[in-house]
Amino acid sequence: MTFTVVDHLHMAHALRLAERGLFTTQPNPRVGCVIAQGAEVVGAGFHQRAGEPHAEVFALREAGERARGATAYVTLEPCAHHGRTPPCADALVAAGVARVMIAAEDPFPKVAGRGIEKLRTAGIVVESGLLRDEARELNIGFFSRIERGRPFVRVKLAMSLDGRTALANGESKWITGAAARADVQRWRARSSAILTGSGTVLADNPRLTARLNEGFSLSPMGRGQGEGRVLATDSPDAEAMASVPPLRVVLDRHLRTPPDSHVLDDSAPTLLLHGVAAACPDDRFSQVERAVVAERNEAFDLSAVLALLAARDVNEVHVEAGPTLCGALFAAGLADELLLYVAPILLGDSARPLLKLPPLVDMAARWCLQLYDQRMLGQDQRLRFRPAS
Amino acid sequence: MTFTVVDHLHMAHALRLAERGLFTTQPNPRVGCVIAQGAEVVGAGFHQRAGEPHAEVFALREAGERARGATAYVTLEPCAHHGRTPPCADALVAAGVARVMIAAEDPFPKVAGRGIEKLRTAGIVVESGLLRDEARELNIGFFSRIERGRPFVRVKLAMSLDGRTALANGESKWITGAAARADVQRWRARSSAILTGSGTVLADNPRLTARLNEGFSLSPMGRGQGEGRVLATDSPDAEAMASVPPLRVVLDRHLRTPPDSHVLDDSAPTLLLHGVAAACPDDRFSQVERAVVAERNEAFDLSAVLALLAARDVNEVHVEAGPTLCGALFAAGLADELLLYVAPILLGDSARPLLKLPPLVDMAARWCLQLYDQRMLGQDQRLRFRPAS
Repeated sequence: MTFTVVDHLHMAHALRLAERGLFTTQPNPRVGCVIAQGAEVVGAGFHQRAGEPHAEVFALREAGERARGATAYVTLEPCAHHGRTPPCADALVAAGVARVMIAAEDPFPKVAGRGIEKLRTAGIVVESGLLRDEARELNIGFFSRIERGRPFVRVKLAMSLDGRTALANGESKWITGAAARADVQRWRARSSAILTGSGTVLADNPRLTARLNEGFSLSPMGRGQGEGRVLATDSPDAEAMASVPPLRVVLDRHLRTPPDSHVLDDSAPTLLLHGVAAACPDDRFSQVERAVVAERNEAFDLSAVLALLAARDVNEVHVEAGPTLCGALFAAGLADELLLYVAPILLGDSARPLLKLPPLVDMAARWCLQLYDQRMLGQDQRLRFRPAS
Repeated sequence: MTFTVVDHLHMAHALRLAERGLFTTQPNPRVGCVIAQGAEVVGAGFHQRAGEPHAEVFALREAGERARGATAYVTLEPCAHHGRTPPCADALVAAGVARVMIAAEDPFPKVAGRGIEKLRTAGIVVESGLLRDEARELNIGFFSRIERGRPFVRVKLAMSLDGRTALANGESKWITGAAARADVQRWRARSSAILTGSGTVLADNPRLTARLNEGFSLSPMGRGQGEGRVLATDSPDAEAMASVPPLRVVLDRHLRTPPDSHVLDDSAPTLLLHGVAAACPDDRFSQVERAVVAERNEAFDLSAVLALLAARDVNEVHVEAGPTLCGALFAAGLADELLLYVAPILLGDSARPLLKLPPLVDMAARWCLQLYDQRMLGQDQRLRFRPAS
């Protein structure tokens, strides 16, 4: 199958629509749909929120009778099962579309090819794989959770040019500038969970909420987008919709989180993970959820932590923690992305290190990454790395 | 004065010619000259080597009779004095040019406006400042030496993403890839001197020579040039000309440099700087030059080191040293540029730090830099920073 230029344009449009659900579809994937008669768009929509209609439904509604004989472009395989909404494959069949172009197949077991099968059985021409990489990237956490049984883990760090995150006395405000800090809020907002350790809670007492209205607005953080790009104005801006507050997850083996910590307030849900032997001194944790996670060698089994989060429908995990937890994720091969802000300053060798990693005796054992995305945010560089394949 | 588009094109051409002397004019500045009748170039040349003719002479020779009434574009104010060659201002007058456009005024005391004055006295229209920033950048070391009495100091460092230059055991080969290492050779070759410390000599025994033929050829390292850009082919490539070997300068307070060190071989001149109390154990240093430099607090007075190098006509100093010397240059405010290669690897907190700097107690005291240039070299990033103004 060779897709035409018009096919690419419509699917790219559908992807941009899907992106509008960036902060709201949790735990569902972000999905967009365009219905077209040749080059003309007759209907378009995107999934906004779990429990509400899927992208195809909005697009079909708008298309009405003009859906008959049209081509539907969907960024994810239409569902074939009755979930909280009826199957979209049925809706496309009922509307009489002639062709369905799909970006990425849905790995979710209740769909996984059955959507495509249902459409083909009804005589619809179905092709998939159009802009598949882009569609998978947009839902990288969803695919990770379904296919690997663990969330996509993005470790955020901010450092000086010489790889230091704070002075020896702990002072770190502010290494990076306003643009970088505003950008961080967007990465927090798109994730399902924000993970930290009790050491960070004790040292910095962070709120770990996503505050999209702070600082100036930047474009979504997709690959290769220019900094000046803004969302189209013909539908609600993704930021204007109330985002789903990410779950705050604190790794707190000994339940040391102080009672007046921001993470215990009611601004977002919180999950405290602790060791089996940890005792709670009082009722300070009555407002938040707790769970026990297996330990190994005086530390959490991080694979078990991630499995637990996947079971709770966590797609993307945003990590903001100290060098120990961040280093442990890299050392265990569980960090899928390093989101690194680099400020053009020098702090010197007495300042705090970026990552605590097991000492290397041989350069061959170094951890190798690959630059995935790079841009300037004010005076700071933002770099995204993924493990070298 | 408003320069025309044609003026800009000719001066840009002259600058590209000047760049061909990048590796050979030491200690002279790199200078290019274009002689034009309107849009047509009738003569062009550049200064190749100290003691040989200046750019204007080559350009006038090519122009011959067509220099009469023409405009000369010169990247540096023509000389007005008899040095190793006769004054270029006289040659321009004799050739009958009508206008002279100058990029940058020459701060050298024997010129400093006198070239312009001589031309004007002869009735020639003279304007300066066309692409001045670019012309000054090309000779940043020459201007630094004449105007500040010290060379331009470029500190080269290569590090992992987490700011580490070597494993705890000292292993550092190779943090960066082949493209970055080839690039380093070009920065060495364009500098007048390569500076290191005896610690680096003892640990790594570097050759500290410029080996332009190693690795593949890249474009010159000017600001904002595309990586694919190559030199024009209508005159000798800068790299094809024998470069002037940079002076190897070793800071060796106690004369610890071992007799079999590469820096003592005859592949390039070497200058050993030592403390007043240092004693030489034998005749190991008979082949190299030595000089005493003032010390303060058990360390060299780095300002005195730079003053000594300036007095020896050193324009650009390329520093390849350990974290102590590099850190001391930054701490003293004597590092004019950080040339930083960043490899996409992690080495961890037990690995060696980038820079040893005095501990900070307050973030306000951090060293602030400004990103000046950025590009990829294979998998590595090359970043150039200068002090924030």
